[in-house]
Amino acid sequence: MKEIYLDNAATTKVDEKVVKAMLSYFGEKYGNASSSHGVGKIARDAIEKARAEIAKSINAKPEEIFFTSGGTESNNWAIKELFFVNMNSGKKHIITTKIEHPSITEVCEMLKHLGAKTTYLYVDKEGFIDLKQLEKSIEKDTLLVSIIHGNNEIGTIQNLEEIGKITRKHGIYLHADACQSYCKTKIDVEKQNIDLLTLNSHKIHGPKGVGALFIRKGVKIAPFINGGGHERGMRSGTENVAGIVGFAEAVKISNEKDVKKIAELRDYTIKKLLEIPRTRLNGSIGNKRLCNNVNVSFRDVEGEALGQHLEGYGIYVSTGSACASHTLKKSHVLKAISLNDLEINSSIRVSISKFTTKTDIDYFIDVLKKIVEKLRKMSPFS
Amino acid sequence: MKEIYLDNAATTKVDEKVVKAMLSYFGEKYGNASSSHGVGKIARDAIEKARAEIAKSINAKPEEIFFTSGGTESNNWAIKELFFVNMNSGKKHIITTKIEHPSITEVCEMLKHLGAKTTYLYVDKEGFIDLKQLEKSIEKDTLLVSIIHGNNEIGTIQNLEEIGKITRKHGIYLHADACQSYCKTKIDVEKQNIDLLTLNSHKIHGPKGVGALFIRKGVKIAPFINGGGHERGMRSGTENVAGIVGFAEAVKISNEKDVKKIAELRDYTIKKLLEIPRTRLNGSIGNKRLCNNVNVSFRDVEGEALGQHLEGYGIYVSTGSACASHTLKKSHVLKAISLNDLEINSSIRVSISKFTTKTDIDYFIDVLKKIVEKLRKMSPFS
Repeated sequence: MKEIYLDNAATTKVDEKVVKAMLSYFGEKYGNASSSHGVGKIARDAIEKARAEIAKSINAKPEEIFFTSGGTESNNWAIKELFFVNMNSGKKHIITTKIEHPSITEVCEMLKHLGAKTTYLYVDKEGFIDLKQLEKSIEKDTLLVSIIHGNNEIGTIQNLEEIGKITRKHGIYLHADACQSYCKTKIDVEKQNIDLLTLNSHKIHGPKGVGALFIRKGVKIAPFINGGGHERGMRSGTENVAGIVGFAEAVKISNEKDVKKIAELRDYTIKKLLEIPRTRLNGSIGNKRLCNNVNVSFRDVEGEALGQHLEGYGIYVSTGSACASHTLKKSHVLKAISLNDLEINSSIRVSISKFTTKTDIDYFIDVLKKIVEKLRKMSPFS
Repeated sequence: MKEIYLDNAATTKVDEKVVKAMLSYFGEKYGNASSSHGVGKIARDAIEKARAEIAKSINAKPEEIFFTSGGTESNNWAIKELFFVNMNSGKKHIITTKIEHPSITEVCEMLKHLGAKTTYLYVDKEGFIDLKQLEKSIEKDTLLVSIIHGNNEIGTIQNLEEIGKITRKHGIYLHADACQSYCKTKIDVEKQNIDLLTLNSHKIHGPKGVGALFIRKGVKIAPFINGGGHERGMRSGTENVAGIVGFAEAVKISNEKDVKKIAELRDYTIKKLLEIPRTRLNGSIGNKRLCNNVNVSFRDVEGEALGQHLEGYGIYVSTGSACASHTLKKSHVLKAISLNDLEINSSIRVSISKFTTKTDIDYFIDVLKKIVEKLRKMSPFS
């Protein structure tokens, strides 16, 4: 059976070019980047080359990029260590949104026990924050605004440039979680006034287990992991050389042409899906939506059942954020954009990639139509 | 030029079998272990299989193994989060040793600012702690004893079984850093009464960027990284599936026969080295020394120069712990075993692996003899 993977917001297939770039760092160039000899130097050089590649992609300086084990670590580092360092200055207010990834909200909730004060900004029906509400929320003790750039469930892309103007004006740090948006929409830490930026590899056809945190020069933040002084004393632990090389290769091969192609396929998918009666699109339309994200609700259809039936045809979608599937809680993102429980339960996320074809989508739509019809017939609400 | 890598305590070449085991988790079985569908299940099953393999290797239960990004993260997690959780109980005394890896000492020093009290146990000339001193150091507010099992610089293996008897008797937690000893000498968390154990992959021919923390069931410890609830809520972040699979494969293929072969080659190397006049072995002899570790000082020879000359012949050794090379500080381990500055500066670490041959060692010894002689002739102390 043909398999059609439409869950690329959860994770992506590692590109063959990326695997190829990584391979020699397992078996030949396996040195420890901290070793002072030549074998170490090869690893060190590879890391610095990767660092430069990633820095360039967001208009940062190489020395502002710190490699981590992934987006969740980067988010934890940014929020926790900025908070701890500034704790005694009285700045303990964090502004974030109601549609963050758990690696932000769980950290904020944890920090409450240590004196943090958190404001969760509301979002509108398309998932956008209100810039006026943001500015009004700023208080004398506000330390940081942390915003998810492209939302992992509904794909809404916040206007970082406008947000950055506000935070800069008020002298507040801006952290953006760009795990989903990186290499899918333009990020420029200068233009957008970003102070801290979370990046990861496995959403862009790179390996899992590697990510980065951009820390603007001058930002007062403590290391998250202490030890041998790797990453200029900011993130200890023997560097995952192969992972870092793979991450950078994934960034290098990403391109606007692919993004455009994916966005066209997204719009085609949305158009076809909305032809199914009583279907609602969650999130926004056009270029303020992640190129790979589609999220829809089918009235009187149980999303879980729909997902299972699709799987019977070799089609994989998400019926909630993969990151949220450890809990049985309803999506807080769909709730934040005012969906009721029935609508939340009837939603699926379809996330495509550069490997997805129009034929894949046509097959998916054909199968989906039949399943939706069948499930609606069985529904007690229909 | 033939290259002879004798720095396997810094890192090891990834075994071909390990690379092979990992490969399919990049390109075919690339699912996110949190996804509820079949692609996710393949990843989830691979992780659980790996977890069972690693648990078995230390006589733990699978649910006591938590995957991390490596040894440094595991050490940070164990010490910091045990301390934070128990902070309010008044237990704030940590006992450790003068020969720990920086990922322990830097954490202990950092925690001092938050009220921790630390005792650094002295070691004897071979690097062993004194069990009586350990027991005497225990106070009413002692929370934890953290011990490096096999030392990364001089290879001394502490007697965990006897240490575990003491900590258990006094109701104190025992954490062991087994980054260097894992798969090289027997670890049994039951027999040795270990409560927390740090493991990593890249010292045993597995990939970099992955490790684990064993947490005995019932130990009160907080998560180090918060977020989507991965690793049963204890370590969030999308799992590095390929890395975890590679780690477990490295554990699986490790075996006593290799350890015995490596130990024999170590003893041969030591014997040959000690034939060079005015050479001193640092650390102990026999089975209380890591099978792969040799550390020697050559009087009137500058270790750094020796390392550079050896590199000219394609031979790579360490002139200090790789993890310490970020700083120009003298080895605290060699200092702890009472070497003076001249002796410290004249020392090198030779660490072998299953890939090292007797021919490699003979060539190394031949070259070394000539260089030592030459450097001694040039030395003002000679």
